[in-house]
Amino acid sequence: MDLKQELTIRATRFNEALTDYLQNGEPKILYDAVRHLPLAGGKRLRPVIAMIACEAVCSDPGHVIPFGMSLELLHNFTLVHDDIMDHSQLRRNGPSVHVKFGEPTAIMAGDLLFTKSFEVMHTLDVDDTTFKKLDYLLVNCIREICEGQQLDMWFEQQKQVTEQKYLEMIRKKTATLFSLAAEGGAIVGGGTTKQINGLKDYGNSLGLSFQIWDDYLDISSDEETLGKDIGNDIRNGKKTLIAVHSLYTATGEHKKVLEKFFGNKHASEKEVKAVFSIFQELGSIEYARKTALEYNAQAKKALSVVNESHAKHILESLADYVMKREK
Amino acid sequence: MDLKQELTIRATRFNEALTDYLQNGEPKILYDAVRHLPLAGGKRLRPVIAMIACEAVCSDPGHVIPFGMSLELLHNFTLVHDDIMDHSQLRRNGPSVHVKFGEPTAIMAGDLLFTKSFEVMHTLDVDDTTFKKLDYLLVNCIREICEGQQLDMWFEQQKQVTEQKYLEMIRKKTATLFSLAAEGGAIVGGGTTKQINGLKDYGNSLGLSFQIWDDYLDISSDEETLGKDIGNDIRNGKKTLIAVHSLYTATGEHKKVLEKFFGNKHASEKEVKAVFSIFQELGSIEYARKTALEYNAQAKKALSVVNESHAKHILESLADYVMKREK
Repeated sequence: MDLKQELTIRATRFNEALTDYLQNGEPKILYDAVRHLPLAGGKRLRPVIAMIACEAVCSDPGHVIPFGMSLELLHNFTLVHDDIMDHSQLRRNGPSVHVKFGEPTAIMAGDLLFTKSFEVMHTLDVDDTTFKKLDYLLVNCIREICEGQQLDMWFEQQKQVTEQKYLEMIRKKTATLFSLAAEGGAIVGGGTTKQINGLKDYGNSLGLSFQIWDDYLDISSDEETLGKDIGNDIRNGKKTLIAVHSLYTATGEHKKVLEKFFGNKHASEKEVKAVFSIFQELGSIEYARKTALEYNAQAKKALSVVNESHAKHILESLADYVMKREK
Repeated sequence: MDLKQELTIRATRFNEALTDYLQNGEPKILYDAVRHLPLAGGKRLRPVIAMIACEAVCSDPGHVIPFGMSLELLHNFTLVHDDIMDHSQLRRNGPSVHVKFGEPTAIMAGDLLFTKSFEVMHTLDVDDTTFKKLDYLLVNCIREICEGQQLDMWFEQQKQVTEQKYLEMIRKKTATLFSLAAEGGAIVGGGTTKQINGLKDYGNSLGLSFQIWDDYLDISSDEETLGKDIGNDIRNGKKTLIAVHSLYTATGEHKKVLEKFFGNKHASEKEVKAVFSIFQELGSIEYARKTALEYNAQAKKALSVVNESHAKHILESLADYVMKREK
């Protein structure tokens, strides 16, 4: 099976529906700002997972597209507001929304994307009880994303963070949307409770492994050059699983070096390297890699509730693919 | 009937439910920011209108409180984000949310208030079809508020705005939430279609008269001193109905003065006074007063679909009260 092709087929179908849905409106500048990011492309992983989960419980993936749009619009809303908060200038190879349209319009465009993620739910062809259930899951998902984002900001100011808190943060900030994608796909597809819960677990574990692998890739791909990204993350005291592990296990001299230079905006290149060496010596990089692999294995195991099918194989391959990505 | 007492009784009941609903959560700072504005008081006009509309169709106003909370949370979410956009430092006699908690947390708190306005709908005791209908109305209302806010920002950069566009802006930015309050109250209360539409019209006309009267009060209360507020509005080129009327009717010398000094950040006090004199001479202030009165009369007329009752009298008195307010 050619995974990329399988994903592209579904993403293309999804993109047609999204382009059709995100029509222009008045005031034009607001709708231009609303359309800027969602129509600039992206892998559409969340809606595509919803579509494949729908197929995995033997239903036409077309049914779940409006729900997928809801998730994609929601994801884009969080990106627009995150970019304002982080002062990020670039997104998907173009200027971020606030850079192109100004901050007030970008705040508003985020709010309207948020609104549209609820609006598009009303085009779903489901009974009113299922609608209400999905609406509730969506509300909970957004609440968790807000909490996760706030935790992430808060972590930057903390000297140390427990692994449990770190996992809570990435579960809320990242995994919850993957989880809802798979769960919602199964609900709209009419799956059994067992299948719905299994696919929900798949999405959650996949999301966790995705995020931890990202942290791992960021540091290992940059290892030889110890480039700008690692330097920034170390100077900003970014609480990746790697940093969390080192901060927790370090003793003696290691502990002193971390306390002095990790999260120190003025750390020199040599001092950044010293921190990086501790990450290696304490096995924190390897620990993150293994943890990501474990969650990935859990994701695949969760699929046992789904009958053998082409869709199931795609979900398995997708899990493999997440761990094969390179920067 | 003592209107203030009638409003206070209902606002007190509403406040108890809201305080109960807006419990603390984690991360604490985010929930502190979320609770800051909604628990700082306010007239609770929107939920109280929903409660009285519910009574007007012969139902217990307690039923509609969760819907009222949804509107109040929504209103607060817009205030939090508006204050960021407008760089407003004060709100309800205290620091605005972004001043107290920083801009990133304020953006997030607004998003979470938004989320909670959908969340609280799930505590409404209505059948699933009614839930879906109310959810749809809520989505449309927020979309209109975003569009109205964007129009308002856009107007500041325009030389001239038609009265029609101005009315569209205030209908979307202000009246739509009053309209939904009365409509939703009637829906939850089990009113007839005629009653629901009548109360919706009441809310809409009331909201329009409320906003236009605000513009009128701003300028007339300040008339003798020609204080800071009028000066700022004239220098910023704020498109109130008064300004819209003058810009439309002015000819010759009047037109020249308006073109030169209305919306001119550097206009002197004397020049501001010249603009104000034109507003008076062209009858624009009187025009705004009359227009507000007309919408107010329409609001009361729309109540004809509701049987005589104590609740109906409160709604009538509320309309009168809106026009008796002073700055």
